[in-house]
Amino acid sequence: MSEPASQPPRRGRPGYDQETVLRRAVELFNRQGYDGTSMGDLAKELGFTKSAIYHHVDSKSHLLEQALDVALDELTAVIEAARDMSGGTAYLRLRTAVRQSVEVLVAQQPAVTLLLRVRGNSPVELEALRRRRWIDAQLAELVQAAVDEGALRADVAPDLVSRLLFGMVNSLVEWYRPDGVVDATVLSDAITTIAFDGLNAP
Amino acid sequence: MSEPASQPPRRGRPGYDQETVLRRAVELFNRQGYDGTSMGDLAKELGFTKSAIYHHVDSKSHLLEQALDVALDELTAVIEAARDMSGGTAYLRLRTAVRQSVEVLVAQQPAVTLLLRVRGNSPVELEALRRRRWIDAQLAELVQAAVDEGALRADVAPDLVSRLLFGMVNSLVEWYRPDGVVDATVLSDAITTIAFDGLNAP
Repeated sequence: MSEPASQPPRRGRPGYDQETVLRRAVELFNRQGYDGTSMGDLAKELGFTKSAIYHHVDSKSHLLEQALDVALDELTAVIEAARDMSGGTAYLRLRTAVRQSVEVLVAQQPAVTLLLRVRGNSPVELEALRRRRWIDAQLAELVQAAVDEGALRADVAPDLVSRLLFGMVNSLVEWYRPDGVVDATVLSDAITTIAFDGLNAP
Repeated sequence: MSEPASQPPRRGRPGYDQETVLRRAVELFNRQGYDGTSMGDLAKELGFTKSAIYHHVDSKSHLLEQALDVALDELTAVIEAARDMSGGTAYLRLRTAVRQSVEVLVAQQPAVTLLLRVRGNSPVELEALRRRRWIDAQLAELVQAAVDEGALRADVAPDLVSRLLFGMVNSLVEWYRPDGVVDATVLSDAITTIAFDGLNAP
């Protein structure tokens, strides 16, 4: 939220737009933990006084909700697109869902990092966990369908496959740093190769 | 730390030993975040008054250090044992390191969960990150050696393999709950099958 136009701009205060406020808040939450971040910390980070911060931010929880929605909306769209792919096998839909999930994780890494750390400590977090469970259930169904059509090995339980496959995908938010060499395509190639073809030399 | 023997036991205060204090502290840290947990929270959790807690706990940071050492000592021992295995191939050493890491993660899940969430916000956390980096470097060397001997595919960069393989392993601390069906052996079978043989139907 920008300051009302009727007020003169205050000297030395950067004119943050809402997107920048959200981005820097998410960076701070990821750095020191959402629960460990106060509105005072946020004000300091953004260069606002403790009273001015409320002109820019309704509440810490509203920022969290916005960031989690960004991550969840994009991941949900990936699942829905894969589910609704016409003409393909379940195996192809699953591979597509894996690849596109990697793309979302790379494009929205800070928001997804925040999402993956949510523990359910508030109504906003509980709602995010509910949406995550819906996504996980859809992915588990895709794995099951690919097993059913004979494309995936049947000697590992499909729910375990789904957990471990997306455990590998999700792990990248913890260590991936864009460096110009490893991009989303390199990452999704590596993940699909390891997961589907295996590490053993062909 | 137990209370000095010269003091009579206080009524209604559970007689926690040091191991129980550590276990419950780690549970609390994992539930609400280390940075978001005060000595007051810890006292409340353990049923101590705010002043009595200091008879049982030197500092929050000392509890963190003890818990991280439990996880790091066991993971380090796994790596050293795999590295020093005589007579085997690098491939076998790597598979052994994966299996035994899974066993440590299952046996020490709360401590490893805490370890994997460390961000480097204090000297204790920085030292834990230093030890984690050493472990990661050893694992990356094992992967490289298995590629060099021709046992692992060479078309995915070894450092990426190492990150993703142990990303999958580490993910289990986020979702694994012992249920009598999926134990450490089922988990390590699933992980080694997916990672080395791949999900594609044989």
